[in-house]
Amino acid sequence: MTRSTADLIADRARLMGPNVATFYDDPLHIVRGSGVWLWDAQGRKYLDCYNNVPHVGHCNPRVVRAIADQAGTLNTHTRYLHDGILDYIDRLTATTHATLDTAILTCTGSEANDIALRMAEGITGKRGVIATDATYHGNTSLVSQLGKSNVPSVGFGLEQYFRFVDAPDSYRTPDPDGMGFAASVAAQIDALNADGTGFAALLICPYFLNEGFPNHPDGWLTPTAEVVRRAGGLLICDEVQSGFGRTGTHFWAHEKMGVVPDVMTLGKPMGNGHPIGGVVANRDIVKTFRQGYRYFNTFGGNPVSCAAALAVLEEIEDKNLQANAKAVGAYARTRLTTLQDKFDCIGDTRGSGLIFGAEMVLDRDTKTPASAFTDRVVNKLRDRGVILSKLGRHKNTLKIRPPMPFSRENADLLFDTLDEVLADTPLAP
Amino acid sequence: MTRSTADLIADRARLMGPNVATFYDDPLHIVRGSGVWLWDAQGRKYLDCYNNVPHVGHCNPRVVRAIADQAGTLNTHTRYLHDGILDYIDRLTATTHATLDTAILTCTGSEANDIALRMAEGITGKRGVIATDATYHGNTSLVSQLGKSNVPSVGFGLEQYFRFVDAPDSYRTPDPDGMGFAASVAAQIDALNADGTGFAALLICPYFLNEGFPNHPDGWLTPTAEVVRRAGGLLICDEVQSGFGRTGTHFWAHEKMGVVPDVMTLGKPMGNGHPIGGVVANRDIVKTFRQGYRYFNTFGGNPVSCAAALAVLEEIEDKNLQANAKAVGAYARTRLTTLQDKFDCIGDTRGSGLIFGAEMVLDRDTKTPASAFTDRVVNKLRDRGVILSKLGRHKNTLKIRPPMPFSRENADLLFDTLDEVLADTPLAP
Repeated sequence: MTRSTADLIADRARLMGPNVATFYDDPLHIVRGSGVWLWDAQGRKYLDCYNNVPHVGHCNPRVVRAIADQAGTLNTHTRYLHDGILDYIDRLTATTHATLDTAILTCTGSEANDIALRMAEGITGKRGVIATDATYHGNTSLVSQLGKSNVPSVGFGLEQYFRFVDAPDSYRTPDPDGMGFAASVAAQIDALNADGTGFAALLICPYFLNEGFPNHPDGWLTPTAEVVRRAGGLLICDEVQSGFGRTGTHFWAHEKMGVVPDVMTLGKPMGNGHPIGGVVANRDIVKTFRQGYRYFNTFGGNPVSCAAALAVLEEIEDKNLQANAKAVGAYARTRLTTLQDKFDCIGDTRGSGLIFGAEMVLDRDTKTPASAFTDRVVNKLRDRGVILSKLGRHKNTLKIRPPMPFSRENADLLFDTLDEVLADTPLAP
Repeated sequence: MTRSTADLIADRARLMGPNVATFYDDPLHIVRGSGVWLWDAQGRKYLDCYNNVPHVGHCNPRVVRAIADQAGTLNTHTRYLHDGILDYIDRLTATTHATLDTAILTCTGSEANDIALRMAEGITGKRGVIATDATYHGNTSLVSQLGKSNVPSVGFGLEQYFRFVDAPDSYRTPDPDGMGFAASVAAQIDALNADGTGFAALLICPYFLNEGFPNHPDGWLTPTAEVVRRAGGLLICDEVQSGFGRTGTHFWAHEKMGVVPDVMTLGKPMGNGHPIGGVVANRDIVKTFRQGYRYFNTFGGNPVSCAAALAVLEEIEDKNLQANAKAVGAYARTRLTTLQDKFDCIGDTRGSGLIFGAEMVLDRDTKTPASAFTDRVVNKLRDRGVILSKLGRHKNTLKIRPPMPFSRENADLLFDTLDEVLADTPLAP
């Protein structure tokens, strides 16, 4: 049925329970998508500058066809032999360092990170996990503990194993060589060893997307990786947001940051919205985990999910989407810089490829976050047909992370609209 | 690409790691499915008497069309408004007791059970969970602890919260009024209270499918539910296998067993193989959980998953699949009884609707499990084109759990073939 916005909101409360977040003061009722475009129930068109799950574009024809064809042919589980999962893992691991040669497929990034942490426990015999204090890595009992901004009050006491370091912030507390971050990880490792927990893993997004994608030179994580390895722990890179060519310069953000993780986890964009996630690691790590637990996932690696995921890899390659991310991202950064010259509220601009944004401040000297202002800007952009969001510890950074076919023309529309909105929005309401 | 069986097995070890189970001594390479039929790479046809995930039949046209249509229209997340998730939850909760009125959608049954246990923790403030010693409820760090037959050596110490009762066994240790099971649950509750853990929940499949679907009269769980409620805990019914009309007599197996759970969890058949799971509970329980943790699942409840799940409910209704399960199940039981009269190796026959089977014994007096024999029978059936499996604590019970469109003619083929195989298979090899 087709509900009014008011009825949709009322039925959500009735059927889904309280505290189910929507975007925007006036939530969007989206009914159709294609490429970088979304349409609401009134037929209004929006430029999607936010959604990374439809990595190769909303309703990408190649992916939709792959799903429809395979769903009409066979969908079953991995206890029968099938070429699909092998074709996919073969192609996926061809994009990674030689040591990342084996994969477990899941349905979500949450499931993938839940496995990754158990791999670390299996390898190290320890349980202490370190993350940043402004991140998110999923929603299971275990991995929900990694989300400091949404601390669960339920979770079977698992919080005892998690320690947090300050999220890197290139704008306010520069750390150009990464030695500061490495030192803060080392301090938490020492604390875990001192209290008897021991150190199992550092789990990070290598481009720190939730943290506000700080501006770091390539290779920035090298000292941190050294600290982790010296302490006998595993480096887990969550590439759910940063991977599949998003940063433009590299297929995986950990390559950009100069490290090879022990375990890499995948989710959101992997199947362009079809529920698939995965863990890629060295076969010795997978072996230790699988000997400790005979993991099976009914839907994980089913032929339809693998067909969707394979189509995503093919589409990235055939359409040169990583190169597009690099070129359009570079263009977007120049337009952002131009806006920064014009508007004092833009304190900092950052990004690489098709993850970029601007940090809004009330004052460039004090760098006081303009959080409420940023929220108004995001809502005004929505009203003018441009969809994006905000993030970072102060929720004052525009988060621009569009589908990968995003073009220069799309970027022009985004920045022309942002220009108008910034000109039209007073810092104080 | 198309690999040989030998190459498929070699590539699985290379790309997926060790200890990845396949069915059968000679693993099946399935390439196509339709209704209750599967075809291997050589074009050989198999009658599927095992797979419950394709609940409304392999490649069900209504489900495939729903997936293809919605995937080509829009696939996004619940932070935008959409009718699909509301239409689905509305329809789903119309099948349940009035108190089960609110749902959280996930991608897997594992994610659903992981939430259900946190709901119990949130409501009771305790962490002790009771399950049977021959079950399986999923693969996250938390819920993998429920699988006594595959005890994980990794899992962040969560095993401390889990206690097990003997799986009910109507053949060897009859408990016709369910008082024995209730007493063993009460004893574990006492133990959890005595050691300071406290009691949060009993989590069971109400028809005990993994335990070998013991033969219990309707209403059998009533005394157990009373014990659980008196102790202040939650009754969680995992309807992943037993629900959606599978037992023929009721849409949900907990209705058959005479109880209303506090929380019901769903998975496998919900989207006919498309990855979707869910938790259904009273809104007060959902509220307590969501206030304790602002749960969000990127893929959970997306428009494509909801379209697939809605098509499954529609297909069950339009094709009268619950009534079919009841009728064909009753017919199958009579044929099983006839076989039991003929073959001494069949010690017991059990089931309801389209979950049924026979327990194989070496001797009817001693009831010694014929586990190796059962394995040979299962493999011989596979060689003759009939797919099923074995389960129960002794792995000596034939597990027959076909797609719901299974017909009398299909049952005849199954039992004619089983008759031949039993006549042809000596108890001692």
